[in-house]
Amino acid sequence: METTSYIALVHYPVKNKTGDTIVSAVTNLDLHDMARLACTYQLAGFYVITPLEEQQEFVRELVAHWREGSGGVLNPWRKMAFELIRIAPDLETVRRQIATRHQAAPAVYATTAAAMPGQISWKTARQKIKEKNTLFLFGTAYGFCPELLEKTDGILRPIMADNEYNHLSVRSAVSITLDRLLGDDNKGD
Amino acid sequence: METTSYIALVHYPVKNKTGDTIVSAVTNLDLHDMARLACTYQLAGFYVITPLEEQQEFVRELVAHWREGSGGVLNPWRKMAFELIRIAPDLETVRRQIATRHQAAPAVYATTAAAMPGQISWKTARQKIKEKNTLFLFGTAYGFCPELLEKTDGILRPIMADNEYNHLSVRSAVSITLDRLLGDDNKGD
Repeated sequence: METTSYIALVHYPVKNKTGDTIVSAVTNLDLHDMARLACTYQLAGFYVITPLEEQQEFVRELVAHWREGSGGVLNPWRKMAFELIRIAPDLETVRRQIATRHQAAPAVYATTAAAMPGQISWKTARQKIKEKNTLFLFGTAYGFCPELLEKTDGILRPIMADNEYNHLSVRSAVSITLDRLLGDDNKGD
Repeated sequence: METTSYIALVHYPVKNKTGDTIVSAVTNLDLHDMARLACTYQLAGFYVITPLEEQQEFVRELVAHWREGSGGVLNPWRKMAFELIRIAPDLETVRRQIATRHQAAPAVYATTAAAMPGQISWKTARQKIKEKNTLFLFGTAYGFCPELLEKTDGILRPIMADNEYNHLSVRSAVSITLDRLLGDDNKGD
């Protein structure tokens, strides 16, 4: 059964290695892996956020190849996954579209590899998903700029927070986050 | 604290789309994502299994770039992850190397997207990890050939088994599997 949860991959505003604000480039494989995850966990949609018109066009062409083009004929499962991709210039647009669709604004949570005070526990996030529609944001490059974090309703705790090494790919971070929030590993033997 | 668990990415014997046995090609990005996961979950090693000498050489060059070359200078965290990569021609070699290192043969489990009778539950797998050294095998292309499955001690249950759509990337499958087996999502609030 489809959930009312969404994910978004954010390409702006994010930081580069030295902390400057940049627009990161869209990566083909991130879209494939995340669309397949969105389908597996029955999300209501997967937003690709970038303000650059040419990057939006790149995503539109990629999505069309799998939705209407030869890709989807050869691989209908990939077509099904790509049906969930939406393109938006910024967080405000995503929030508005979700609010219109569900007649209620979503709770918006950022994800991060860094431990910070006041982060939301996994248990609390699972509870929120049961109560209302939700949007989980994933950053690219070296992570979100503070002005984006300030626009959210909270920041999820990092994965493996006590580990010195916390350098997962965004593909892995989305995989683990969705499984913790919506996975079926709760049936014991 | 380092575990005594290992993962292996198997490029032979696997199936192609029509069910023939093939050797799949090593994918650069799989190695990056899996090495980072191995480091995050403090595995004892990550084996890349391929019988093709030229593919083994490709992996050796890639690993050298990050361990001893310019890659590791620019990105020491990636160097740390690549330290965990081992190369082997087949499962028997991996089993023997682990057995030699720990003075005990590992329990070997395959992973799959297909539901089959007698699969091992996640709970049981977590228990096994506490009892002895373990090796979890991940397939490439269209999955393991039966002759490989017969050499294991069991097959893990699929992720999201009740979902009609089960087409995760191997990168996502490894991420979710390791988090279910060794993750820290057990602290409540």
